[in-house]
Amino acid sequence: MSVSSRKRGGRRARQSQSDASAPEIIPYITRRIPEYELLDEEGLVLIEKNADLILKEIGIDFRYKPALKFFKEAGADIQGERVRFPEGLCRQIIQDSAPRMFEQKARNPKRNVMIGGKHTVFAPVYGPPFVRDLDHGRRYAMIEDFRNFVKLAYMLPSLHHSGGTVCEPTDLPVNKRHFDMVYSHMKYSDKPFMGSVTHPERAEDTVNMCKILFGEQFVDQHTVVVNLINANSPMVFDEMMLGAAEVYARNNQASIVSPFILAGAMSPVTAAGTMAQILAEALAGIAFTQLVRPGSPVIFGTFASSISMQSGAPTFGTPEPSLVLNGCASLARRLGVPFRSGGSLCASKIPDAQAAYESANTILPTITAGIHFVLHAAGWLEGGLASSYEKLVMDADQLGMMQVFCSGTDLSENAQALDAIREVGPGTHFLGCEHTQNNFKTAFFRSNIADNNSFEQWELDGAMDAVARANKLWKQMLKEYQAPALDPAIDEALLDYIHQRKSSFADSNI
Amino acid sequence: MSVSSRKRGGRRARQSQSDASAPEIIPYITRRIPEYELLDEEGLVLIEKNADLILKEIGIDFRYKPALKFFKEAGADIQGERVRFPEGLCRQIIQDSAPRMFEQKARNPKRNVMIGGKHTVFAPVYGPPFVRDLDHGRRYAMIEDFRNFVKLAYMLPSLHHSGGTVCEPTDLPVNKRHFDMVYSHMKYSDKPFMGSVTHPERAEDTVNMCKILFGEQFVDQHTVVVNLINANSPMVFDEMMLGAAEVYARNNQASIVSPFILAGAMSPVTAAGTMAQILAEALAGIAFTQLVRPGSPVIFGTFASSISMQSGAPTFGTPEPSLVLNGCASLARRLGVPFRSGGSLCASKIPDAQAAYESANTILPTITAGIHFVLHAAGWLEGGLASSYEKLVMDADQLGMMQVFCSGTDLSENAQALDAIREVGPGTHFLGCEHTQNNFKTAFFRSNIADNNSFEQWELDGAMDAVARANKLWKQMLKEYQAPALDPAIDEALLDYIHQRKSSFADSNI
Repeated sequence: MSVSSRKRGGRRARQSQSDASAPEIIPYITRRIPEYELLDEEGLVLIEKNADLILKEIGIDFRYKPALKFFKEAGADIQGERVRFPEGLCRQIIQDSAPRMFEQKARNPKRNVMIGGKHTVFAPVYGPPFVRDLDHGRRYAMIEDFRNFVKLAYMLPSLHHSGGTVCEPTDLPVNKRHFDMVYSHMKYSDKPFMGSVTHPERAEDTVNMCKILFGEQFVDQHTVVVNLINANSPMVFDEMMLGAAEVYARNNQASIVSPFILAGAMSPVTAAGTMAQILAEALAGIAFTQLVRPGSPVIFGTFASSISMQSGAPTFGTPEPSLVLNGCASLARRLGVPFRSGGSLCASKIPDAQAAYESANTILPTITAGIHFVLHAAGWLEGGLASSYEKLVMDADQLGMMQVFCSGTDLSENAQALDAIREVGPGTHFLGCEHTQNNFKTAFFRSNIADNNSFEQWELDGAMDAVARANKLWKQMLKEYQAPALDPAIDEALLDYIHQRKSSFADSNI
Repeated sequence: MSVSSRKRGGRRARQSQSDASAPEIIPYITRRIPEYELLDEEGLVLIEKNADLILKEIGIDFRYKPALKFFKEAGADIQGERVRFPEGLCRQIIQDSAPRMFEQKARNPKRNVMIGGKHTVFAPVYGPPFVRDLDHGRRYAMIEDFRNFVKLAYMLPSLHHSGGTVCEPTDLPVNKRHFDMVYSHMKYSDKPFMGSVTHPERAEDTVNMCKILFGEQFVDQHTVVVNLINANSPMVFDEMMLGAAEVYARNNQASIVSPFILAGAMSPVTAAGTMAQILAEALAGIAFTQLVRPGSPVIFGTFASSISMQSGAPTFGTPEPSLVLNGCASLARRLGVPFRSGGSLCASKIPDAQAAYESANTILPTITAGIHFVLHAAGWLEGGLASSYEKLVMDADQLGMMQVFCSGTDLSENAQALDAIREVGPGTHFLGCEHTQNNFKTAFFRSNIADNNSFEQWELDGAMDAVARANKLWKQMLKEYQAPALDPAIDEALLDYIHQRKSSFADSNI
């Protein structure tokens, strides 16, 4: 396949497959490099103390009666929707039962992902109502785009996960599009995926479809779907999100409890204040999942960026969110749950140098902070308003580099290369020596997007920029796409379920 | 001034200046974040052991008689030009006298830079024979371009240093262009700068011009020029470079002893082998400077990237050079001398997304590795063959972000923002609260290049990409440029010296 990244000798070479047409399998990254910690013990303890103070003195609003009942029984102070927590209560509930690491099963077991520990999982962009490509510019996303993004994510070895709302299929009614989204992930990919969170009923539909795909008992015993539960920051969780989180937790499925922060609007304009608020919100939301079903898998998430204090528009790839991301990763490690943040975020409207600088400025700190689950790792454009075909493959190329970086430095005898240095000696070159001959095929990352030719050759090739090359690449990929096999009986059962459910209530765009 | 980056409250606010037209002064970065170390003690000791073995068994060729004499006296084994070093000899020579940190004086004392320790100094691109801008594409560089790059670097607060060969003035004879280059740095900027290294006589000219600018005694007692001494890797130092290094060391001026590595050609294809060879070459070259004049300032440098094993072309921003850069920074810290590496490197022929990804992939690891002197920090394009006007200001914008990142997380009471969180509480927003009002002006990095407006506003503004905005910016800057004052007597003396010297020998392009 033309788009497969190079194979690394000896490194997770789980590549033997019966189906020769299927894309290369690198199920997830195992980081062999240390975590970079910007805050020291004293700083982290300070943030934790402040989060505890927020939980105890100010409290969090839970706009969902069952949550209030759970927290009352657990010993919290309830005043209307406001929940105030005795010091250490949330942390104790979480540390008593939440897993430090868990496995999300994929329908292809070779693609199961480990979430937590030294592992990193990359998932594509989530949520944009628009798509953009070089040929047609920016337009509302359709289900056809959704399927295309699922297919491309399936074919890109550096994306370990099929993601969720890779774009909003705006041509389908709001109250029914989740069927087509979940089905697309199940049908056009065999990577793990995310479920619907926009209504508890849609969460139930997701779980029911998972039971058809994986089997009823399997779903209760294994995590097969991961779900994005955003807080309404500051310090509010709403009924829809909590209802969906409850459905998933009850069914042993994972929630990513994510304060959604544009600092200066949903949190203080400072990193330290933002981190304390994020930790407080996450502690409360994660504790809720553990009260619903102790031991159910859960991820401490956060989406945090800043805003332009001139225009109010969100900004990305700037230094302040990097500090927050890094600090929150440390706080999550201390809490002992997997962490989601980061991505390839940008404010740019097109996949230009601004987009690339901003994306690299987010994904590199994501990697060095040791983040476990990375949503928006590829394809994000325009502050999350557009999914970009070109940027999807451009970012994925970068993710391949991150994977090699995570392997760290090989210190084997072969890598030390003393015999090569002896053989070559001063004043000559290493191009033809035996060591180079033996190692050159796997020595260096080979990009699918970068042009490393001479200026003259590049001009002869049409003087293309990275976006033009990316445009060629994704089109070629869609041409070559072959769906992974799916048991026709399961496929039929899924389609039957969707048909029955869709016929049982009227279309609506609410 | 339209191009000044925002002021950070309390953070190095050395901004009071008598001349209101002069650009903002941020003399250098002081890193308040820890160094990220990818290799552990065991790994670093292994690389050091291998470097010692290279120095002892294989040796380094010094194609310069005075160097052979110095090393013989110091106890090395000399066979022809090959110098083999008893174990630990180079390290001992260096640690006996080389400074861990030193100050390079600028003609404006507010712009003196500290090189070493927790400090980082950014200098522009060095060496390209071509320039590129959006209006005229790629062309041979002229002295007019050279002056423009010096002026722009002077005006960009995130560049702390004027650099050296910001581009090659190809319209001037090779054997005389150093006069115009050094003079341009002295005349059009008051930032610290670099000298000529292409011939020992040109190094002498540089020192002589420095004596005119700074005074004779001052130059002997202070470091006023930093100079790039490349090794001819593998394991060779040539006569020209060593002769220049000798001139500078004798005059107490600084050399950056830099193995120049494209791994796979000038070193083994592996990171561990490359690092051992770099360390061996650097140890030998640095020791030479200390034998010339013990205590003279010296920087462990390295330029290391990989090559495409398909085309032989250099590649940048890939993961392997990041590993080498990070490891070498650790090795330099252990040796106890300042370290130069990194930059905003790229292979792309234009300042597109490829250029930005690759540059960010180099400059961020540069920062987290704690590198002291960063050549090529802005303006590098096309593997170093072209200096780009647009990329100069685009990269400089990124360097401003790196500076904020290096400040780390403010943990002051104001930054903790607990009162703000109390005031705002759940379910509202922070936009109007007192804490936001008091802090928003300095809260977030403000880019000169990024467009963070809405899609609609961006379209109304002409749907420009980052390069188009950068093009406007540098042209506006050159329009606004005002030269820093220079004593007319010194200026005249410099021009006299140049005139006399230029008349004393014929033009030549060798």
